[in-house]
Amino acid sequence: MEREHLIKPLLDRRYPKIHHGKGVFLYDEDGKAYLDACSGAVTAGIGHGVPEILEAMKEQAEKVIFVYRSQFTSEPAERLAKKLSESAPGGGYWTFFVNSGSEATETAMKIAIQHWQERGKPGKTIVLSRRMSYHGITLGALSMSGHAARRRRFVPLLEEWPAVPAPYCYRCPLRLTHPECGLACADELEAAIRRLGAEHVAAFIAEPIIGAAGGAVVPPEGYFQKVKDICERHDVLLIADEVMTGIGRTGAMFAMEHWGVEPDLIALGKGMTAGYTPMAAAMAKDAVIEPILNGSKSVMSGHTFSANPLSAAVSLAVLDYVEQHGLVQAAAEKGAYLSERLRELASRCDMVGDVRGKGLLWGLEFVSDRTAKRPFPAERNVTARIVDRAFGKGLLVYPASGGDDRGGDAIIVSPPYTITLEELDQAVSLLEESIRETAEEVTA
Amino acid sequence: MEREHLIKPLLDRRYPKIHHGKGVFLYDEDGKAYLDACSGAVTAGIGHGVPEILEAMKEQAEKVIFVYRSQFTSEPAERLAKKLSESAPGGGYWTFFVNSGSEATETAMKIAIQHWQERGKPGKTIVLSRRMSYHGITLGALSMSGHAARRRRFVPLLEEWPAVPAPYCYRCPLRLTHPECGLACADELEAAIRRLGAEHVAAFIAEPIIGAAGGAVVPPEGYFQKVKDICERHDVLLIADEVMTGIGRTGAMFAMEHWGVEPDLIALGKGMTAGYTPMAAAMAKDAVIEPILNGSKSVMSGHTFSANPLSAAVSLAVLDYVEQHGLVQAAAEKGAYLSERLRELASRCDMVGDVRGKGLLWGLEFVSDRTAKRPFPAERNVTARIVDRAFGKGLLVYPASGGDDRGGDAIIVSPPYTITLEELDQAVSLLEESIRETAEEVTA
Repeated sequence: MEREHLIKPLLDRRYPKIHHGKGVFLYDEDGKAYLDACSGAVTAGIGHGVPEILEAMKEQAEKVIFVYRSQFTSEPAERLAKKLSESAPGGGYWTFFVNSGSEATETAMKIAIQHWQERGKPGKTIVLSRRMSYHGITLGALSMSGHAARRRRFVPLLEEWPAVPAPYCYRCPLRLTHPECGLACADELEAAIRRLGAEHVAAFIAEPIIGAAGGAVVPPEGYFQKVKDICERHDVLLIADEVMTGIGRTGAMFAMEHWGVEPDLIALGKGMTAGYTPMAAAMAKDAVIEPILNGSKSVMSGHTFSANPLSAAVSLAVLDYVEQHGLVQAAAEKGAYLSERLRELASRCDMVGDVRGKGLLWGLEFVSDRTAKRPFPAERNVTARIVDRAFGKGLLVYPASGGDDRGGDAIIVSPPYTITLEELDQAVSLLEESIRETAEEVTA
Repeated sequence: MEREHLIKPLLDRRYPKIHHGKGVFLYDEDGKAYLDACSGAVTAGIGHGVPEILEAMKEQAEKVIFVYRSQFTSEPAERLAKKLSESAPGGGYWTFFVNSGSEATETAMKIAIQHWQERGKPGKTIVLSRRMSYHGITLGALSMSGHAARRRRFVPLLEEWPAVPAPYCYRCPLRLTHPECGLACADELEAAIRRLGAEHVAAFIAEPIIGAAGGAVVPPEGYFQKVKDICERHDVLLIADEVMTGIGRTGAMFAMEHWGVEPDLIALGKGMTAGYTPMAAAMAKDAVIEPILNGSKSVMSGHTFSANPLSAAVSLAVLDYVEQHGLVQAAAEKGAYLSERLRELASRCDMVGDVRGKGLLWGLEFVSDRTAKRPFPAERNVTARIVDRAFGKGLLVYPASGGDDRGGDAIIVSPPYTITLEELDQAVSLLEESIRETAEEVTA
């Protein structure tokens, strides 16, 4: 066996090589087909091999692919920034383009800190976040993330552990019940601000629906409205990490629309290019940029490939495709269908403790005892077993965490918005087989 | 005037829109041509609009653009990792693909820390670096960077200021003279390791030739050999940040070859795709990965777009192009020519205090008094004036820092390796005009 040179997630595992992709399917070099029911990493929202995107890429590539943002701009980058601004909640956003979701959340964090500096409040440098969260893997992004497994090795280099409990009603971290709780988890944000002193807090960052760290955890109605109100009262900016949820994934262009909340800053990634090029973005409301525009006039950050015309043209083509094919609405409608199928699946599989989500972002959490909501012991590797079994059957689902502080298992089902109902049925059927077989294995 | 939506470096400046590029020239929408004498951000090493790269991009795009590394691999990603391994000093490297230079240095840092964890030395978490350095803008990368202007706003979030003086002989930070100094700046690395305790130090990161933070500062002969020896004696890994220098820029495939040093880890970016797609890489020697392969078997990091087949195919095409056209040798030869032209320029312009560099990576440092090596006061904005004047004449050069702790001015000249000698003459001539006019302006 020839030695490996590429670092993959598991160094001793062999991964199939994908030869080509079309629609919701990927095909490996042996011809095996995989139904991509999680859009890779909740990314390929319009499916693979879409001719319109390839055409846009080719067209821009023939003009110019790379210019450096300190020297030039380009028509596609300008148009994309304008389009994003018009699409985002309430409009009126500026955009800083970057290359990954991690860079997007870090850039949002930096803009928030700089905003307060330019307003004469340089002490506001803390970005609060939630214990069940994932905002990226670079050290600034990881500092804001509560994802224990990804933090563990680098704790000495990170800021404090995130301070705020998540609105995780299936297992309330405060051991309360909604709606009697009165959204006490949001009150905990206010408590954290008071504890640290609002004069030290720049922003609060949250995923509208918690992704990898929670398995599509949807907050109860009223949560983000309350959070926004707390932020406003304490001069704390609200950063929505829409890297996973943005651009239609939840059946709205931006997930924050579900609650009528206009974030001060938004991090975007994944779906904004649907995987067709590495690009992400930090967006900031006019009011956030205004003190900088009237002050130093320069947002302190920068990346070599930032706002390159090729990536911008590709993202524009993806946004146009989503719009022209009504895919946001499609995600909402197909999501309603998928949720019914997943709830039926749950009714037949005791191992499924919770089904939650919105649009085409759904999570299943697995438990060893449904009534007691008892998680499986971590060493049973339930998530990995289900994901691997599905993979064997040619079905891709996305592993996630869930559960209480001792760990827990969840997966995310998040197919391209272009999936058909028949393909959804096929995905749910293969998933049910995978769950049943895993249940037999781990309860044996 | 329509409002802006794109965050550019200066919010109140209008930037020309580039319409297309060909070879070493970029053309804006008004038809103005710019001679790209700095490859954008020391990136576009093979120039713009190279048909072979566009063809490779199109060919791969028609198969598959994006797969998620936790699920699949691809032929281009495997081939690229192998090719990089074979090209790097001494061979035998594993590669982790990421999307930017910042992510590359952060990934190298994380692999270094994990290496020691898997060897039972979890206390080794500090990555030492030099005060004159730039390793990227995400918080982990910025923590390792000594670039004052880019750090300033985020100091409360960063690790300690870099501890080690740079081998900056034009103005030795230790006020010594080479070679009588005996490479005392390298001894300072050893002093820092002893002060902190080798049991706390995971790695030392350094740019072979200091880029944006120094203006192409080349270390004296023997420096990196001594650094490598110190690292080995104290069980400290050496990370070469070759984001700017890698893939031929200095007239060697990797700059560390100039000193016969095999780094334990290498960060790559910019030139590895020549700007044709956002991609970067962290490379690690077999010996660095071995304890992980025999331990947890999993390198803890991950990015959605990591190792995507399109970027890998594009980078492969760039590496093939560099190889087939003998561009590493070309960079060495044209660099010799350029260095002569720049030294002649310096002999005619009192403002140029120092000319330094290697291959096609050259720096000019500017002083108000050549004998006393006195920098210009920061408020004279000498670097920006020169860069802007050149820009007005249709010449792109890259701004850098230089000088002592009070600041200083430098630019980088780093054209594509495909530039002709006539185009080099043209670049140097326009640069001389820009410097002369700036000199008149600031000394008036």
